[in-house]
Amino acid sequence: TGSHSAEADSQTEWTDVQKKIIPWKNSTPSLDLETAFQDRAAKLGKSSSRLIVVASLIDKPTNLGGLCRTSEIFGASALVVGSLHYIQDKQFQHLSVSAEQWLPLVEVKPSQLVDYLQQKKTEGYTIIGVEQTAKSFDLTEYCFPEKSLLLLGNEHEGIPANLIHHLDVCVEIPQQGIIRSLNVHVSGALLIWEYTRQQVIKQKQQQ
Amino acid sequence: TGSHSAEADSQTEWTDVQKKIIPWKNSTPSLDLETAFQDRAAKLGKSSSRLIVVASLIDKPTNLGGLCRTSEIFGASALVVGSLHYIQDKQFQHLSVSAEQWLPLVEVKPSQLVDYLQQKKTEGYTIIGVEQTAKSFDLTEYCFPEKSLLLLGNEHEGIPANLIHHLDVCVEIPQQGIIRSLNVHVSGALLIWEYTRQQVIKQKQQQ
Repeated sequence: TGSHSAEADSQTEWTDVQKKIIPWKNSTPSLDLETAFQDRAAKLGKSSSRLIVVASLIDKPTNLGGLCRTSEIFGASALVVGSLHYIQDKQFQHLSVSAEQWLPLVEVKPSQLVDYLQQKKTEGYTIIGVEQTAKSFDLTEYCFPEKSLLLLGNEHEGIPANLIHHLDVCVEIPQQGIIRSLNVHVSGALLIWEYTRQQVIKQKQQQ
Repeated sequence: TGSHSAEADSQTEWTDVQKKIIPWKNSTPSLDLETAFQDRAAKLGKSSSRLIVVASLIDKPTNLGGLCRTSEIFGASALVVGSLHYIQDKQFQHLSVSAEQWLPLVEVKPSQLVDYLQQKKTEGYTIIGVEQTAKSFDLTEYCFPEKSLLLLGNEHEGIPANLIHHLDVCVEIPQQGIIRSLNVHVSGALLIWEYTRQQVIKQKQQQ
């Protein structure tokens, strides 16, 4: 029977980790990220997706570490974080179980997000905010495009109004309980899963 | 815009919490649990489901607290834990954000699980193990019955072999990455979501 822990997986060197970390505003950002995508696609075969998970607004290392693990497992192409310093946080590492060694991490500070989202739009990505708004699509009804970028909100503030205007669409998770909202790692995981589920079904239909 | 935190929600009294906690082997367990179901259905209206989440094999208070929050939000009818003592754990409470005050909690010790699963079978529940086995269904292909009981595995050992024999079915989450497996709270959340998604779609088709 399988297990739910990868804590015991072998550790690679810190230098290997560093190779997979791409500050967005370096000399040739698109080139480096494309190389990272291809590298990952080669490792994962067909399973590699064109899903980018943007967690720049998230503050808690536990949520970022968890998202790193979940994003890696579902073959996301990159996780975007607000600061690369999180990777050295013990809580991040405890939750990520070394996923940061396999998933390309990109640093985009919150102040750079508008520019970053605009650039990804020009590259053909649909910018999807995970947020409850009057115009949000219900997750049970939303069809994810192949090139999807998920923007997750801050634990307390959600997605600020100035960024909402730069989204192509908002998607919300229908919730039935009395407690108000899901943990942001869980919200992200459900959208990553739903994207993955839809891609799997599409691939089966094409065969 | 919405937010992902409910930490600030109002607190009710500990006596209220205690009313919602049902040790399984008391004098009239079925009666008490049925009362709790009806109580919850009345609070949530149609959104209350017949989904039972069994987390008796889970050890970490953070995973249990997270599952409590997620189960409450998706309208599960009860969360089963191995010990009621977890509810007083600070880490549990930090992650559950008071969800234990709204979701019926049932104590079933790991040693009582075989009997508990057998009883639930006679009540019409399908016993679903979340586990990777040679015969597991892929989560993208599994249709959840209305009366579903999810048995989650231990963080390190998964579901022990003696319990696998008592399951009606195993379901596994297809995973593409290099890291071996999802966190058990995330695994549980994805199955709870998938159950909910299917129920929502069925309800829409009936309207």
